[in-house]
Amino acid sequence: MNTRTFVLAPDSFKESMTAKEVCVAMERGLRAVYPDAHYIHVPMADGGEGTTQSLVDATGGTLFTMTVTGPSGTPVEASYGISGDGYIAIIEMASASGIQHTRAGERNPLQTTTYGTGQLIRACLDKGIRQIILGIGGSATNDGGAGMAEALGARFYGKDNQQLPAGGAALGALQRIDVSTLDPRLSTVNILVACDVTNPLCGEQGASAIFGPQKGATPEMVRLLDHNLAHYAQLIHQQLGKDIASQPGAGAAGGLGAGLLAFTNCELRKGIDIVLEYSGLRQHLSGADYCFTGEGRIDHQTRFGKTPFGVAQAAKAVGVPVIAVAGSIGSGTDVLYDKGIDAIFGIIPQADNIDNLLSSGPENIQRTCENIARLLKLSAV
Amino acid sequence: MNTRTFVLAPDSFKESMTAKEVCVAMERGLRAVYPDAHYIHVPMADGGEGTTQSLVDATGGTLFTMTVTGPSGTPVEASYGISGDGYIAIIEMASASGIQHTRAGERNPLQTTTYGTGQLIRACLDKGIRQIILGIGGSATNDGGAGMAEALGARFYGKDNQQLPAGGAALGALQRIDVSTLDPRLSTVNILVACDVTNPLCGEQGASAIFGPQKGATPEMVRLLDHNLAHYAQLIHQQLGKDIASQPGAGAAGGLGAGLLAFTNCELRKGIDIVLEYSGLRQHLSGADYCFTGEGRIDHQTRFGKTPFGVAQAAKAVGVPVIAVAGSIGSGTDVLYDKGIDAIFGIIPQADNIDNLLSSGPENIQRTCENIARLLKLSAV
Repeated sequence: MNTRTFVLAPDSFKESMTAKEVCVAMERGLRAVYPDAHYIHVPMADGGEGTTQSLVDATGGTLFTMTVTGPSGTPVEASYGISGDGYIAIIEMASASGIQHTRAGERNPLQTTTYGTGQLIRACLDKGIRQIILGIGGSATNDGGAGMAEALGARFYGKDNQQLPAGGAALGALQRIDVSTLDPRLSTVNILVACDVTNPLCGEQGASAIFGPQKGATPEMVRLLDHNLAHYAQLIHQQLGKDIASQPGAGAAGGLGAGLLAFTNCELRKGIDIVLEYSGLRQHLSGADYCFTGEGRIDHQTRFGKTPFGVAQAAKAVGVPVIAVAGSIGSGTDVLYDKGIDAIFGIIPQADNIDNLLSSGPENIQRTCENIARLLKLSAV
Repeated sequence: MNTRTFVLAPDSFKESMTAKEVCVAMERGLRAVYPDAHYIHVPMADGGEGTTQSLVDATGGTLFTMTVTGPSGTPVEASYGISGDGYIAIIEMASASGIQHTRAGERNPLQTTTYGTGQLIRACLDKGIRQIILGIGGSATNDGGAGMAEALGARFYGKDNQQLPAGGAALGALQRIDVSTLDPRLSTVNILVACDVTNPLCGEQGASAIFGPQKGATPEMVRLLDHNLAHYAQLIHQQLGKDIASQPGAGAAGGLGAGLLAFTNCELRKGIDIVLEYSGLRQHLSGADYCFTGEGRIDHQTRFGKTPFGVAQAAKAVGVPVIAVAGSIGSGTDVLYDKGIDAIFGIIPQADNIDNLLSSGPENIQRTCENIARLLKLSAV
């Protein structure tokens, strides 16, 4: 038998394992059956939580941690990554400005700010970075990215040339935007925004109406925030000459999409596509015998840009079979068979409480992959 | 590709599916991938709970239900099976005299009786049966099988030729056993006793000491019951000329093993070996491509005579690969790989409560087997 090559390209298993840890567990299981095979670890992500860690791990990069202004104005610890070659930064906006930094019951999208996200971008500029990958899911904010822009030097003035306070509520009083003070290095940076939604900034499908409630917005707040973001977009159009309000994705992350479009050189793309490109997965797949992927949960939503689906598409393009494992298999996974996922296996060994299942993730991945390998070997004889 | 033959030989999944239902779910999953394959259903068991149902299903037989005397003396509904060819009866002693017929807290092994088991045997004699398979696990009794013998005509006398009351406590007063009144048809019947334990009737490893406590016996009861069974064995030796006390398995099912050895033509064998023989599995395996097995739980005990182990041994002998599925995978299953089980997969799709998992058993078996088949087909291309 020829030496096999296994490409291991899972997402993280939320609250249980990073994608890299999943790779390690997968290899351990497969190696019990194929001790001499090649194992290529490509920790994956889809632009959401875990993207920084996975791309750092996939490229042999470094994770940095710093204190920034959290969404509610108090300091929080946030992190960003630099790729192994030193050229690319990876940021998750949620690390600085995510909903996990606010307490349920105390959430106030009138005041939350993306300032910390701007600080992370500035830290990357300080490192001489020219290419940033920015995941923008999980925000606690509804400020149109004004806070982010302010951290990078933009100024937002209201009546009497007073600078506005942070948050979407204050934007209603916006009269003038000054970008002359913007960090000049920003013009030399390309930001690749991992964005899976196509919502416009305002209106029924806008940032406030669709994502506001999960950040604590009451119907009244939604109306105010939506009105203010429309006003904000209008001034951006008038004063900066950029018409961003109706661009798809402008409404992502409380309008951070709009802010990025207004104040930076950016391109919005699906998160999984960015990760596929920058993880090097496609190159690794060439000549592989099998690709293993997986995620904490695989279900009917997986085909809308989740990692196992993206991995399967890439593998299918070069004829490599894809086997997926999941901590949780929901309904509607049958459709994935036609999308390049050849087989899906759950890893739960027995009925147990969720804490035990999360903590036993590695051994369950290992055991499941060993049995999959036993089946592959069985059939290959 | 040649037409494949799949032999489906699972045990039941306790509290979820009969073995036959497991076969149906397995086939449904496999057929999605191999629509034209041959599927041979061989519902299995290991001599324990479900053996009657599985052998009835495996042979296309019939299940009969009747009212008998339960272990505590009150009537219970019990069942037995007749094989499809009409020649073989299958009885589980627990159906008539099992621990499930007694309530925790009210269990009294001083008085429980195997009388109902004897009634089931008599019902088979009435049907002209000459071969009985008798599973003797799960008993509530400690009467040495005296109740069973009495139901078949034996008489047990104490002082003043008074017939003894039921139960192990009364046996201490036993003075005379009359077998002249035994049902004469019993001499023409062979009873194959499915018995996985080798305990002698008495002593530290005897019926009372080892199995008494789980039937509600206090240490004092254990001493009395052990003493009485020794006396009972002594009288059997003296009056019937049969030395059964130290025979392996005499202590099974509260000494029912001893009673069967004393009063019937019987042979004690491991349950799985009996089922392997009477289910016809070995014949079906010849020429099969794959054998699927499974059980509610697979763990380190599986190799001690459980169905998946027995099926694997039979399949290995003729070189057929064996794939097992389980509702619950415990520790120590690695050793099964060397025992002929090629791969083991859990069927649980996600963390859930046990009731939901038990009720979704068929769909989980189906999905898991479909994915296994997808893997087999993948490799076979």
